[in-house]
Amino acid sequence: MRGKVYLVGAGPGDPELLTLKALRLLRTADVIFHDDLVMPEIIRLASLTAQVHNVGKRCGAKKISQEEINFLMTSCASSGLTVVRLKSGDPLIFGRAGEEIEALRRADIEYEIVPGVTAALGAAAAAGIPLTHRRTSHAVVFLTGQLAAANDEADWKKFARSGATLVIYMPGRDLGTIASRLIRAGLRDETACAVISRATMADQQVQFTTLANLAPADERTAPSLLIVGEVVCLARPDFASIADAAWAQFQIASVSPGAQTFSSQTRFTKSGATR
Amino acid sequence: MRGKVYLVGAGPGDPELLTLKALRLLRTADVIFHDDLVMPEIIRLASLTAQVHNVGKRCGAKKISQEEINFLMTSCASSGLTVVRLKSGDPLIFGRAGEEIEALRRADIEYEIVPGVTAALGAAAAAGIPLTHRRTSHAVVFLTGQLAAANDEADWKKFARSGATLVIYMPGRDLGTIASRLIRAGLRDETACAVISRATMADQQVQFTTLANLAPADERTAPSLLIVGEVVCLARPDFASIADAAWAQFQIASVSPGAQTFSSQTRFTKSGATR
Repeated sequence: MRGKVYLVGAGPGDPELLTLKALRLLRTADVIFHDDLVMPEIIRLASLTAQVHNVGKRCGAKKISQEEINFLMTSCASSGLTVVRLKSGDPLIFGRAGEEIEALRRADIEYEIVPGVTAALGAAAAAGIPLTHRRTSHAVVFLTGQLAAANDEADWKKFARSGATLVIYMPGRDLGTIASRLIRAGLRDETACAVISRATMADQQVQFTTLANLAPADERTAPSLLIVGEVVCLARPDFASIADAAWAQFQIASVSPGAQTFSSQTRFTKSGATR
Repeated sequence: MRGKVYLVGAGPGDPELLTLKALRLLRTADVIFHDDLVMPEIIRLASLTAQVHNVGKRCGAKKISQEEINFLMTSCASSGLTVVRLKSGDPLIFGRAGEEIEALRRADIEYEIVPGVTAALGAAAAAGIPLTHRRTSHAVVFLTGQLAAANDEADWKKFARSGATLVIYMPGRDLGTIASRLIRAGLRDETACAVISRATMADQQVQFTTLANLAPADERTAPSLLIVGEVVCLARPDFASIADAAWAQFQIASVSPGAQTFSSQTRFTKSGATR
């Protein structure tokens, strides 16, 4: 009897944001191959008899190649084992699941995709930013910092000028470069943005600022995610309504230290995010 | 003592795609206000003593206004109750959470956002479509059918020409109009697309086709979602690799009835999706 591979999303960080299906599969899988970003608390939910392997990369340096991961998954499934390939967030958004699916199909291995809460949704929830809004943004674009660093100005112009909320995954530490690129692509200096680090985890951090003031990210706070657009103002205590928002006022607020950064366990009341 | 409102994502349909946190809150809430699209199996997870109210709209006709929903949430929380506002998918993606957050903030009610698996991720998993892919698509755009129907050709051109995967929420029944608009915006007739109906539910349906052949959706199959872009080919058994894909061949395959529609419980093997 041949086994099966489940490509499973582990969600944005908080173990409670795992789906019930992901939990069931973790508890019943024979083998688990997980990425580096998956929290240890989630890995510990695996059955005591499961074989658990970290196949992630750290700081871009792979411990194990994609081909090796594909080989391990197909070998285990071919020998009749139930395999969980656990990825942070959702497997189909910047998760390389496409390549693993192709390998599984070539090897004639049955597979199933189990969606998870992608990082953008965790970050938006952490910061209280609606990614779309009837009055402000009718669309949202997910892209990566790598695309931002690439030399394709044309693509950036299309996104920047669409009026959509932009969510930039894996922005890296060089946030200033991304900001410059977005400004060159047509966004205003004072466009609101938020850097959300370790979203949904106990030590999450949310920094509200503008593109012009976007500073290099602190190395400690990875993984982070950048949200750009007018909807960011909706999460600000001093911007209850985007219609009433004075951008000049926002700029003053955003450069005042202490007002920018909300520490862990952000809660929302009338006066906005508070410690 | 004042209560609290949790804006909670119920996921794309399958009750097993609820997060552990959503389940905990459903079991402990005093009052639950849910949308129409939330599955009855999920509502039944609520505590037996909880008050449960459907505040959704059906076919665009609201049973209850947004202002009434805001009033009910704030009143219950003000009287010390724990309120769950349960929305299908994720609350911050086309979920009007922005408006509810503003109301809660005005009323000085504490709130918290609990992300969920948004419909696009459920649909992509159901159809086996990676929304991003290193070789094919470096970005994904979520937008609504209403935007598609609006008269803003300019915005559509930006998205259509960006090369990003497009995910159209609530495309409605008039898929032909959306297809025409996308073609006018610059996409080729033969651009691959998939209509996913009742994704992640027992009776889910996936239809693979091209923009030129996009037919009106059957009323029975709502809610549905439209995914447009080259990544759609990656889910097709006859398109193991996009690099090798002959578009002409795809067109022949896509107009052959029976080959297009994969019924519920789609599973994937080497030969692709099978019943």
